[in-house]
Amino acid sequence: MISREKHDRMANAIRFLSMDAVEKANSGHPGLPLGAADVATVLFSRYLKFNPKVPLWADRDRFVLSAGHGSMLIYSLLYLTGYEDMTIEDIKSFRQLGSKTAGHPEYGHASGIETTTGPLGQGIANAVGMAIAERKLAEEFGSDLQDHFTYVICGDGCLMEGISHEAIALAGHLKLNKLIVFWDDNNITIDGAVSLTDSTDQIARFQAVHWNTIRVDGHNPDEIAAAIESAQTSDRPTLIACKTVIGFGAPNKQGTHKVHGSPLGGDEIAAARTALNWDSEAFNIPADVLDAWRDAGLRSVPANKAWDDRMAASESAKKSEFMRRFAGELPSGLDSAIDTYKQKLAGSPPAIATRKASEDALEVINGLLPETFGGSADLTPSNNTKTSQMKSITPADFSGRYMHWGIREHGMAAAMNGITLHGGLIPYAGGFMIFSDYCRPSIRLAALMGIRVIHVLTHDSIGVGEDGPTHEPVEQMAALRAIPNLLVFRPADAVETAECWQAALKEQYRPSGLALTRQNLAPSRLDYVAENLCAKGAYELRSADNAKVSIFASGSEVELAVDAAEQLNGMGIAARVVSVPCFELFAEQPEHYRMSVIGDAPVKIAVEAAIRQGWDYFIGNDGVFIGMHSFGSSGPAKQLYKHFGITVEAIVEAAANRMDAVD
Amino acid sequence: MISREKHDRMANAIRFLSMDAVEKANSGHPGLPLGAADVATVLFSRYLKFNPKVPLWADRDRFVLSAGHGSMLIYSLLYLTGYEDMTIEDIKSFRQLGSKTAGHPEYGHASGIETTTGPLGQGIANAVGMAIAERKLAEEFGSDLQDHFTYVICGDGCLMEGISHEAIALAGHLKLNKLIVFWDDNNITIDGAVSLTDSTDQIARFQAVHWNTIRVDGHNPDEIAAAIESAQTSDRPTLIACKTVIGFGAPNKQGTHKVHGSPLGGDEIAAARTALNWDSEAFNIPADVLDAWRDAGLRSVPANKAWDDRMAASESAKKSEFMRRFAGELPSGLDSAIDTYKQKLAGSPPAIATRKASEDALEVINGLLPETFGGSADLTPSNNTKTSQMKSITPADFSGRYMHWGIREHGMAAAMNGITLHGGLIPYAGGFMIFSDYCRPSIRLAALMGIRVIHVLTHDSIGVGEDGPTHEPVEQMAALRAIPNLLVFRPADAVETAECWQAALKEQYRPSGLALTRQNLAPSRLDYVAENLCAKGAYELRSADNAKVSIFASGSEVELAVDAAEQLNGMGIAARVVSVPCFELFAEQPEHYRMSVIGDAPVKIAVEAAIRQGWDYFIGNDGVFIGMHSFGSSGPAKQLYKHFGITVEAIVEAAANRMDAVD
Repeated sequence: MISREKHDRMANAIRFLSMDAVEKANSGHPGLPLGAADVATVLFSRYLKFNPKVPLWADRDRFVLSAGHGSMLIYSLLYLTGYEDMTIEDIKSFRQLGSKTAGHPEYGHASGIETTTGPLGQGIANAVGMAIAERKLAEEFGSDLQDHFTYVICGDGCLMEGISHEAIALAGHLKLNKLIVFWDDNNITIDGAVSLTDSTDQIARFQAVHWNTIRVDGHNPDEIAAAIESAQTSDRPTLIACKTVIGFGAPNKQGTHKVHGSPLGGDEIAAARTALNWDSEAFNIPADVLDAWRDAGLRSVPANKAWDDRMAASESAKKSEFMRRFAGELPSGLDSAIDTYKQKLAGSPPAIATRKASEDALEVINGLLPETFGGSADLTPSNNTKTSQMKSITPADFSGRYMHWGIREHGMAAAMNGITLHGGLIPYAGGFMIFSDYCRPSIRLAALMGIRVIHVLTHDSIGVGEDGPTHEPVEQMAALRAIPNLLVFRPADAVETAECWQAALKEQYRPSGLALTRQNLAPSRLDYVAENLCAKGAYELRSADNAKVSIFASGSEVELAVDAAEQLNGMGIAARVVSVPCFELFAEQPEHYRMSVIGDAPVKIAVEAAIRQGWDYFIGNDGVFIGMHSFGSSGPAKQLYKHFGITVEAIVEAAANRMDAVD
Repeated sequence: MISREKHDRMANAIRFLSMDAVEKANSGHPGLPLGAADVATVLFSRYLKFNPKVPLWADRDRFVLSAGHGSMLIYSLLYLTGYEDMTIEDIKSFRQLGSKTAGHPEYGHASGIETTTGPLGQGIANAVGMAIAERKLAEEFGSDLQDHFTYVICGDGCLMEGISHEAIALAGHLKLNKLIVFWDDNNITIDGAVSLTDSTDQIARFQAVHWNTIRVDGHNPDEIAAAIESAQTSDRPTLIACKTVIGFGAPNKQGTHKVHGSPLGGDEIAAARTALNWDSEAFNIPADVLDAWRDAGLRSVPANKAWDDRMAASESAKKSEFMRRFAGELPSGLDSAIDTYKQKLAGSPPAIATRKASEDALEVINGLLPETFGGSADLTPSNNTKTSQMKSITPADFSGRYMHWGIREHGMAAAMNGITLHGGLIPYAGGFMIFSDYCRPSIRLAALMGIRVIHVLTHDSIGVGEDGPTHEPVEQMAALRAIPNLLVFRPADAVETAECWQAALKEQYRPSGLALTRQNLAPSRLDYVAENLCAKGAYELRSADNAKVSIFASGSEVELAVDAAEQLNGMGIAARVVSVPCFELFAEQPEHYRMSVIGDAPVKIAVEAAIRQGWDYFIGNDGVFIGMHSFGSSGPAKQLYKHFGITVEAIVEAAANRMDAVD
């Protein structure tokens, strides 16, 4: 039992580290760490299962600071509880270039940071993914190896963002009872009081999506503790609404938006030292308090040891599978399985849509990789994401591997991030490519964190047809390619689709998106080639001696490029075709390879049923681009291609005209 | 009073037009129009205030089909009630290229389509904006000119999307009591029953955000009518939960997801004709039914006449102001006011952040344009969007012109679309540029619809500094430039900021985004030039005879380009500078202008603290790009610029090196 006095001193350690670090940086957000210090202290000192010496212990409780601007809360906790890679020097270099202690918590900067937060609402949805992963893996490996809680601290901003609705509705539906969310209910946002913009009864709101709800005084350790204990036994996820004072302890500014996002100033900090009876200098934690915190950091060592023992006693196949899965390593058979599949396709590959080709490739992959975790944002029959191995998950039964995410693209993408961050599973899920816009913030965060999450983006162009411009991607290829560290694949046929899947799966530290067609495509890769050509980003698909014309194309437009090249060659104009399934991987190839693929034909043409942006890398700004220059339209797909001038004839004509000019 | 039999026949007219049109197109969604036909019939035949002969009557009720896939519902209603530009031929050409009757309702295709819907959830949020506009304009012009309801039909998908939470929480907070939402509660989504993915108690959910809620049998006209009448007198927005059978009337398929998004097939339609006792051929509406519908279309003619009379009786200044505002015409004084402001800046323009320059320009604009409607997504002190004229709106008082939107970027952007679509106001609002990702689907729809909505996107680069990569735009410039029909401005100083605001306001049929800095900038435009140079997209800021180096830059990097050019000129390397505040407007200039601005200097360099994508248009793929090649980092802004190599020295060095190569 921790006395009230000891609790207060432990919580105040967080408060002073936070206000002093913000002051030193002359930048940052003291409001949340001061306000939520009591909640965090109760959680970390009495309930959270974690071991600072083994930060990646697979059965640790996960803690997500969804209100990421309060990053000093988590940095303080990591330092105080004894994570070895979070030193007092790291605290002192808060928000400095190259420091671990970035303005917002950055996954990978230091142990114990489970996810990158800051963009509001993301953390809650990440946590839903973590809780899904826990429940799924407990089902698969048993509760002796997976049995932990996922805790979140969120603020009013997280709960105003729409993504929070998607996340909590799904969590309530799935009865994720090991998810416990603390709402730092401090009534304050940047513009002023929450009452300026919102009147939501959050308790009623969470009850409407079937959460367990508890109200506590967020500065009363006993109430907080009782709430956590009650939440731990709930059959539903729990919201603990913690009424707090933002900036608690800053006597003249607390409870106002002045403490939210600016340093308190020397005078106010001095006043806080007096008010809270804290006589240590900045960054000095009294020995008794540091000892208490370090003890808290040791609290789960026996549990960790017991888990190690259970792990050691597990049968060896289970143990090695568990370890492989948490290491994120693929089973050895993937390459040969894809190779076998490619050999099977050779000679007479089917003329199918790449969404169907994706299903076929997934049929191979899912049969081999038990860690793939499929799903769709209510477009299962359209995305072709559910293969024969994929049984649907239900609230009562997590033995399946397929999640019906509902019409919740944003929540889905953020939860997929959480699943990968948790470890043990490789999530993929489908949506219409146009709705990548709905989940773009989460895709970006996957790229920033460097985690393997795979988005199946079907209906990737005006090939959508009758659904019209609201559903036809035009700028989404360019917009996704713009995100650093994201691989965007656009395969042209069944062989390329399999290769792109293979390449995406092998990228442990990058997310991928596969842009796939609704419409059937003629196969372009007819012969078997052992090498994964798509993994090189672009490659010569049809060669020509002394080529005068190079045609670069991706996905559904490769068949047009191939036909055009044939016509041009028939006309005596030597033309070659380069298939470009992935810009990002191509840019990483050695220069000599890139030069040879781009080639030196005087006429360069790029063809993609999307905007030009990005293609100048291949064709220069004097090259010919055949694609979209506006939004799409509603009509049969073939008519749209003709209407927008993306045809074999247009390519041939452009090449011939340009040949006249360069001759 | 409409008898039950007459009601049924009127509703069945919608049903058969819908199923026959989908069948003929061999594509489309019969489920919603069949299921919601009774609700729509009650609304349109007895309550909706509209005049098909005067479709833009400013005081009409607004009707939004948020579940846009059910587009045949609205097309049927428009045809049946007598909109002259919706003929039976238009219905027959459903989903055909060039038709008015696109797959999803497209704003501008035909009268009576108040907004483009299809991306789910957008319509509800548009409607919130319309209801805000109505209340604001009623306050301003009086209820004799503005006093109408806004009605929405939405589906389960709309309510699952996160944007719905943002929209309904705001509507409940603001007590938008003239907003009435019908929820087509049919239990079905594409993947199957709603229970597969969701357990939300929607009534409880809406009550948690202070809505009035009513449950009805969605096939019982009396219940629907009573609910509407009750809703009309509520002091809060109303949700009418209408329990319906999806595909009602298709005897073998109704109530299942088979009717959602595919033609019913000839057999099923024949069975429906029998079941509903409908013996007319496809596209033939029996005379009694068509007469009844046309009568319904005439129902509001007296109200329209009375409104015309009130308008005619209004004082002439009020009348002309009302008409100007609804025509979207700017007052004549804007140009001269901006000109005066530019003259005032000339000579010693201030070294301020462009977010501050934006506030200064808005101070001029808001003083002159009573129609500007400001706001921010809880970043008012950071976005600098609230000028002296802007009083905050509160639930009780709409006399102000400034909306605290809360932490709801997506709902805000969609509501801004609704405000513009309503007419009478020009909305602008601020957010951090990084969070343009959160509202991208709504920005895209503004571009697709071609409407004037202005996004103030501050904190536009690594200049954000300590908040780090989650808050630093890197790819957002490129991603926004990728959206067709959107103008993306990035001004370099106070003069350019004023010009960009002027240009954005003058674009009645395009949305704009202004990318603005957090950090102060040295002014680049020192002398007064009458012409709005930013409206040309790019222009020569510093000239040089026989320039060997052209430096292209935007926004905060223009000052670097100017300094670098000075250094190069001092080194004997003739260098010029082109400021590029808007790619899109530049691309629309005559070729000779574009050629002269791009110039023929052998060395071309582009500088922008963002990714390269798009800049090859200016510099070619062999040009030098100085900018970002990764995500940003957390640290003081000036250190970040140095760390990422975006400096005067880097520009000078690159130019000198390249000169050696071309010499």
